[in-house]
Amino acid sequence: MKPLGPIPSGYALIDGELAVDGRKASALVAEAGSTPLFVYSAQHICRRVAELREAIPSRLALHYAVKANPFRPVLQLMDGLVDGFDIASGGELAQVQAAGLAADRVSFAGPGKREIELEAAILAGVTLNLESAGEADRAMAIADRLGVTPRLAIRVNPDFDLKGSGMKMGGGAKPFGVDADRVPELARRIIASGAEWRGFHIFAGSQSLDSDAVSETQRQALHLAARLAAESGVALPHCNLGGGLGIPYFAGDKPVDLRAIGAKLAEQFAQLPDALTNTRFCLEMGRYLVGEAGVYLTRVVDRKESHGEVFLVVDGGLHHQLAASGNFGTVVRRNYPVAIASRFDAPVEEEASVVGCLCTPLDRLAEKGGFPRADVGDLIAVFCAGAYGASASPAQFLGHGPAAEMLV
Amino acid sequence: MKPLGPIPSGYALIDGELAVDGRKASALVAEAGSTPLFVYSAQHICRRVAELREAIPSRLALHYAVKANPFRPVLQLMDGLVDGFDIASGGELAQVQAAGLAADRVSFAGPGKREIELEAAILAGVTLNLESAGEADRAMAIADRLGVTPRLAIRVNPDFDLKGSGMKMGGGAKPFGVDADRVPELARRIIASGAEWRGFHIFAGSQSLDSDAVSETQRQALHLAARLAAESGVALPHCNLGGGLGIPYFAGDKPVDLRAIGAKLAEQFAQLPDALTNTRFCLEMGRYLVGEAGVYLTRVVDRKESHGEVFLVVDGGLHHQLAASGNFGTVVRRNYPVAIASRFDAPVEEEASVVGCLCTPLDRLAEKGGFPRADVGDLIAVFCAGAYGASASPAQFLGHGPAAEMLV
Repeated sequence: MKPLGPIPSGYALIDGELAVDGRKASALVAEAGSTPLFVYSAQHICRRVAELREAIPSRLALHYAVKANPFRPVLQLMDGLVDGFDIASGGELAQVQAAGLAADRVSFAGPGKREIELEAAILAGVTLNLESAGEADRAMAIADRLGVTPRLAIRVNPDFDLKGSGMKMGGGAKPFGVDADRVPELARRIIASGAEWRGFHIFAGSQSLDSDAVSETQRQALHLAARLAAESGVALPHCNLGGGLGIPYFAGDKPVDLRAIGAKLAEQFAQLPDALTNTRFCLEMGRYLVGEAGVYLTRVVDRKESHGEVFLVVDGGLHHQLAASGNFGTVVRRNYPVAIASRFDAPVEEEASVVGCLCTPLDRLAEKGGFPRADVGDLIAVFCAGAYGASASPAQFLGHGPAAEMLV
Repeated sequence: MKPLGPIPSGYALIDGELAVDGRKASALVAEAGSTPLFVYSAQHICRRVAELREAIPSRLALHYAVKANPFRPVLQLMDGLVDGFDIASGGELAQVQAAGLAADRVSFAGPGKREIELEAAILAGVTLNLESAGEADRAMAIADRLGVTPRLAIRVNPDFDLKGSGMKMGGGAKPFGVDADRVPELARRIIASGAEWRGFHIFAGSQSLDSDAVSETQRQALHLAARLAAESGVALPHCNLGGGLGIPYFAGDKPVDLRAIGAKLAEQFAQLPDALTNTRFCLEMGRYLVGEAGVYLTRVVDRKESHGEVFLVVDGGLHHQLAASGNFGTVVRRNYPVAIASRFDAPVEEEASVVGCLCTPLDRLAEKGGFPRADVGDLIAVFCAGAYGASASPAQFLGHGPAAEMLV
């Protein structure tokens, strides 16, 4: 048997079934009308934000990275929980506007912003995290043409990365941000243009479970912010320190030590250099806030044995759960946390692979896991489905279309 | 520099630009109104089908695997070129129906067919390639309830696979098809039920460039079909031999030797066992027919240098070209064929990476390739974009949405 990932805390058992926020999986599916279905737990999200707020210094604001999960009810829930939103495209700008979020709480980062995206963001009053000097020129020209004062920040390509992170966003040549040594000159040029100067965005990586590495990166980001502010010769109104906190997906993964990170942040903020005393800092997180709050429910449509192996074929698959299938930036496939939701307290009885309904050998949701015996009609839960699930998977592949989504 | 994949034949140069079927890239983009844009060449598709028809024995029918590219104009073009269609979901059934294709030319394979998909297919008169005994039971029960004679075939899980193939669909325990040794009993049971018996579907793998391996797999498939027909004790009306022919994506890849495969098929069909004399055989292909006929055009929105490396940031990315980014079932990332479409005849002047507009380091369309110097506004072409591009990529990722598509 191959190990399954750890089931996140906060899920309950009712009448032998997995329950989310007090509601049984079968009842959630009945309400949605069909499988496959993404269920997001509002309680889980609220609890996670509260834990985070308690752990980190109160002067640190919290931003939500919309890309992790742009489902409208999730955005509207977040509106009451966080201090700002980060978007990555004109499409996400439309999503936050449709959700009724205030544009002045929104910042926009992304390496390939088109003219129409820059224009829409400037008109809306969104802060642009500029990714290059060329993009700065385009933004300033558009604002000039529109007669609008743009809100401009610089995304910095730091000289360090987040050690052990799943996604490295800094350290060396990168398509993201402006190389640190070119930042001061660009900052002065932006301010001279009459734009509203919004400071720096420093994002070194994401999905790290190593709290020491996260703390070290935050220390370096603060140090870099201070140095660049000093070299720029201007005050730093805002600084987005990025995120970096990961969630456990695989067997052996341990949750990041939030208290340790919070304690280190408190130390660092207690000895900020004078240049940063009046700077408003934020952390920007997506996956950490919503990833473990989501469950993907899919129904077994066939149970078959082939050459002695058991396959549970479900009505979902990689078209909704690309990362869980191991096909999204993964070198070695490992199992996500997966369980039989309709037999959530039953003991392990057999080894089985959970495969999706797509006609490709890539479509595996669990490989040779240990499960209670499941049959046609049983519900399967794939956990850690709250971030980069529905929106980061090829929903139209093989003509299947998107899954339903529900916030409970 | 890292090598780029080989540009497929059939593309031309007009006024220094890439041209598809006699039309310049800039003109195609102007007609579409925006980038990114998938352009599919009807001439390329027709030529490929003609070459294939000429190479293989005339008694072999040719089916198109809709999953490779379900764009409606492509389906309608194929309607006049091939003898049948293979679908993989109820969604693809709706797509072929919307394109006006006759359902009696359609067969449906896929490991997780839901009840509503089985019902729709049976009602439409589509041939079901049954993936398990359980699915056979469900299909027969539905047909009985509907009072319709279902068209049923068995997808066989062969005891062999296609050596060196990109996707292995047979050989050992698999979620696809019925293990060969269980096929005869199921065939007899289907025929006894009064269903219209449609024979076997034997698919051992896909995306192989080794013609000897393809031929050997076809030989084994014919041998297996004969053996299973004999063991079943019934005539074999149809047999889908699958596909398997790949296309070159990466440096060093050579096109499959179509003549060699055709010659071997002719030999094998000249000595068919008596039991298969009246069997209608088909090959089923998707990628081989349309893959090289497609080009993805995307515009440079930023040119930046970071620590001495050049990045061309484009308005497309992995949300339309997941496989080209190296994130879809790939262990080692290699470059697809990529070129500057607007400077198609210019010499190599620099090393540059083409990165998409998504805010993730996964979004790379070409890594450290050799290109003429390109700047903001230039068009980039990613070749081999005709199959598993638009439909197999996470179009909604980061809120971007799908690219335009055009058949010329």
